[in-house]
Amino acid sequence: MAEPLRRPGGRSARVRTAALDATLAELADRGYDELTVEAVATRSGVHKATLYRRWGGVDGLIADVLSRSAEQPWQVPETGSLRGDLHAITRAVYTGFADPQEGAAPRALIVAALRSPQAAGALTRFFEARQVSAAEVVVRAVARGELPEGTDAVDVVRTACAPLYYRLFVTGEPFDETAAHRAAETALAAARAGVFVSPARPPEHDTRP
Amino acid sequence: MAEPLRRPGGRSARVRTAALDATLAELADRGYDELTVEAVATRSGVHKATLYRRWGGVDGLIADVLSRSAEQPWQVPETGSLRGDLHAITRAVYTGFADPQEGAAPRALIVAALRSPQAAGALTRFFEARQVSAAEVVVRAVARGELPEGTDAVDVVRTACAPLYYRLFVTGEPFDETAAHRAAETALAAARAGVFVSPARPPEHDTRP
Repeated sequence: MAEPLRRPGGRSARVRTAALDATLAELADRGYDELTVEAVATRSGVHKATLYRRWGGVDGLIADVLSRSAEQPWQVPETGSLRGDLHAITRAVYTGFADPQEGAAPRALIVAALRSPQAAGALTRFFEARQVSAAEVVVRAVARGELPEGTDAVDVVRTACAPLYYRLFVTGEPFDETAAHRAAETALAAARAGVFVSPARPPEHDTRP
Repeated sequence: MAEPLRRPGGRSARVRTAALDATLAELADRGYDELTVEAVATRSGVHKATLYRRWGGVDGLIADVLSRSAEQPWQVPETGSLRGDLHAITRAVYTGFADPQEGAAPRALIVAALRSPQAAGALTRFFEARQVSAAEVVVRAVARGELPEGTDAVDVVRTACAPLYYRLFVTGEPFDETAAHRAAETALAAARAGVFVSPARPPEHDTRP
């Protein structure tokens, strides 16, 4: 009974928070090419040897930032309609990356993960977790009778987000509110037309006029 | 008249072809992390000093492979219907990347360009060139009366391709024929619903039910 009460893993959790916050801040300030374990150590106050032992290096740190993001709760929109919810989702993607201040860290994180083969698995799990959360808006729309039974809810969300991530992280084309607007309307129109009902129409029907 | 007839830039063009073909083959075989000017020199027979002088290094070579791809003519499908043409486009993306042999080089090229900040501009111009070519199928559909006047043709194509590139190069999720099928049907349903008519509906209308 002399031992003070202590949350198990308390110190370890604090070290993780400090190291991952510093990694994200370094990415936002300097980018992946300039990211070093030394800089994360200086910024976080966590010893370099600890960072290497626990994360292996910068790529391990990036992967763990993504794991932490995937674990964090995400506020699923609930506007009362699928259209409103899908627009809330694509606007959240837009504002999450567009603002020069707020957007710098998430943008740098994804760019870094795309440049780091070691972080690829963590990136996939991050997107899967977010898409599954957001898919609740589609599940509710099916329950309300707004969409056909059997609609692939995750694929509706994926389709709503894809054009934005495609511009931002693949083609590098401009990214604006019109793109966010059209992405939501596209997913809505396709979902209403039954495009996401499983099983998908077989490929041999592809070319019917 | 002693000078043999010689296409201007003939030698220079041959050097470029050899260097860029070797770059692509090295990327397909070994990937971006293992790509070196030395390996490109050995494979192409072009002297290392020439490669450095003309391209600066591996990132300059990657950027020029993309520039060359953007210049190459691309066969625009002409099936007689927008549905058929959009399916031909998404199937071309699918088969272009899916086949383990054929797909290795283009897949490695895009992954490399995403990892190379220096190649970013060339990647954007590559996608713009392809999207503008492919948009002809939408322009024809508008002319045939299949789609509303004022449809943003490039954005229809971009939307058809986005879910595939998003899976392949951002989320790392599985990539199959169903995804290619749904991507074409999604762009078609949205285009028919008038989602791509410019000017886009203003954002204040986003949340109408």
